[in-house]
Amino acid sequence: MAFEKAETVRTAGSLDSLVRLAADDMAGVNAFIAQRMQSPVAIIPALADHLINAGGKRLRPLVTIAGARLAGATDDACQKLAAAIEFIHTATLLHDDVVDASELRRGKVAAHLIWGGTQSVLVGDYLFARAFELIVEASSLKALEILARASRVIAEGEVLQLVRSHDLALTQDTYIEIISSKTAELFAAAAEAGAVSAGVADDKCDALRQYGLNLGLAFQLADDALDYGGATETLGKNAGDDFREGKVTLPLLLAIQRTGQREQAFWERTIARREQVEDDFRRARELIAMSGSLEATLDLAADYALRAKAALTAFPRSDWREALEVLADFAVSRRA
Amino acid sequence: MAFEKAETVRTAGSLDSLVRLAADDMAGVNAFIAQRMQSPVAIIPALADHLINAGGKRLRPLVTIAGARLAGATDDACQKLAAAIEFIHTATLLHDDVVDASELRRGKVAAHLIWGGTQSVLVGDYLFARAFELIVEASSLKALEILARASRVIAEGEVLQLVRSHDLALTQDTYIEIISSKTAELFAAAAEAGAVSAGVADDKCDALRQYGLNLGLAFQLADDALDYGGATETLGKNAGDDFREGKVTLPLLLAIQRTGQREQAFWERTIARREQVEDDFRRARELIAMSGSLEATLDLAADYALRAKAALTAFPRSDWREALEVLADFAVSRRA
Repeated sequence: MAFEKAETVRTAGSLDSLVRLAADDMAGVNAFIAQRMQSPVAIIPALADHLINAGGKRLRPLVTIAGARLAGATDDACQKLAAAIEFIHTATLLHDDVVDASELRRGKVAAHLIWGGTQSVLVGDYLFARAFELIVEASSLKALEILARASRVIAEGEVLQLVRSHDLALTQDTYIEIISSKTAELFAAAAEAGAVSAGVADDKCDALRQYGLNLGLAFQLADDALDYGGATETLGKNAGDDFREGKVTLPLLLAIQRTGQREQAFWERTIARREQVEDDFRRARELIAMSGSLEATLDLAADYALRAKAALTAFPRSDWREALEVLADFAVSRRA
Repeated sequence: MAFEKAETVRTAGSLDSLVRLAADDMAGVNAFIAQRMQSPVAIIPALADHLINAGGKRLRPLVTIAGARLAGATDDACQKLAAAIEFIHTATLLHDDVVDASELRRGKVAAHLIWGGTQSVLVGDYLFARAFELIVEASSLKALEILARASRVIAEGEVLQLVRSHDLALTQDTYIEIISSKTAELFAAAAEAGAVSAGVADDKCDALRQYGLNLGLAFQLADDALDYGGATETLGKNAGDDFREGKVTLPLLLAIQRTGQREQAFWERTIARREQVEDDFRRARELIAMSGSLEATLDLAADYALRAKAALTAFPRSDWREALEVLADFAVSRRA
């Protein structure tokens, strides 16, 4: 299969070195997360815990910590920012799953199916507010500006995706714009906020922002590929979710362009009209693989990973920089 | 009818003097609102505008402006805070209407029925983020702390209400706790943030917070009464919405306690089980009026209005103080 072939030529990447380096900081981050998701209203921590402790990789807080330490942060303000960013991410997931009516998240039944969409919306709001309380405590107006802006851009990206997601004529540029907003912006803000907490000059903050943005794009494109190339067991969500929701992502978009006229009726029915039958996902997966669209998606992801690594050259070589480089490769090579 | 009788003994109150005093400031606030709800994603301003320009009274921004000016603010930072507070309020309304599945809001079809609940959730998120961007611009970490905390408390209150809302055994204390969180907290934060923007001492900020909190309680209790005593045409929402949603508010809670055993089956069916037929609202309205529950609710609202006015004695008499006093009376005496 094209997916397998493409994979063999890429740098493997890993999360391990970053996780090891950031272990002490992440213990602090996790303590803030556990403490601040509490509420006298019992359903709030119950619902939040369901998602927060479902074994997510905590990629965004890791990026904040690494950004801060790479930029020379000596205090622990970055831990509060990192916890806040995980809360913002969790809030968007909760709202997202209501929006998408997803069934699985991080390998567990989505929260809105247990507690109802209304509770998911409100607990998302709660976590979002908690995030801003934490950022206020970190006492940085600049970090607040970055994360308020990011939250706004994410919402814009989500709306844009909702408006355009069944559009067979979606261009690659517009698609990149959508995922820049809805996914990459938070990675960009996570890295930049880390740098800001270290008090370094603007060019260094911007370099880390560029790292995060490109990392986020690589991450999302690999995610899109996994939805057609991965297995549900390792993904922690249902493979084929994007397809079943009729959501046009890059592998699909390229396959639509590349199979064109010949398969027009198939794409019209399954994506534009969302009339799907049992065998359609298998067929879509086949068309995507055959047209080389998975490879092309992962190639583009690898290019963004390269740009992410290049942005780090603003900093001298160090363990932290290397860990972030390996993370960029991991974003592309991961299986889940 | 009890409602009519009760009303005659109350001070009428009015919004007029406050609206007049704050006219210049509110022009600034409205300019920020119009400017910051824009987005290249067209559906966002369309949906936001539907609600924001539906003729709401802008009570919360008015309170922020009045709080700031009463406390001696000489700059215009309060205008950004006031616009932010209206955005936070609008965001909670958007999420609320999805949660409640309400049909009308401010006399118009609720946004989620036009654009869908998912868009309402995301545009709510957008406005919430925009609010925090505006507060950052006002450059006050203290105001950020107040409004982040308020946003969290509001979400907690909404969840609590959702969990407890069909509970016939709800106590008055718990009900006051719910509306303190979900409604009064934002009024409290609006007034306090105004004071903070003026840079006055903590005791003055706290006095304005107490004003806002008690005003908010008076406002919500009068709202609860209006849902049983008002007419749909003047309300801008369907009279009886609370009842039809099986939402236990104070007039209902008191009527349940006062009619007790005799009507137990009626309340069990209509509220706890939400099995309602055509004539039930008329019957509920009758029981509430006959048991004096509307009067008792408005009496309690008037007590909170009195406490709100008392909190203002921390400031010397002035046009602003008087306008806020008259607003407190208006919160209770209003017809919509």
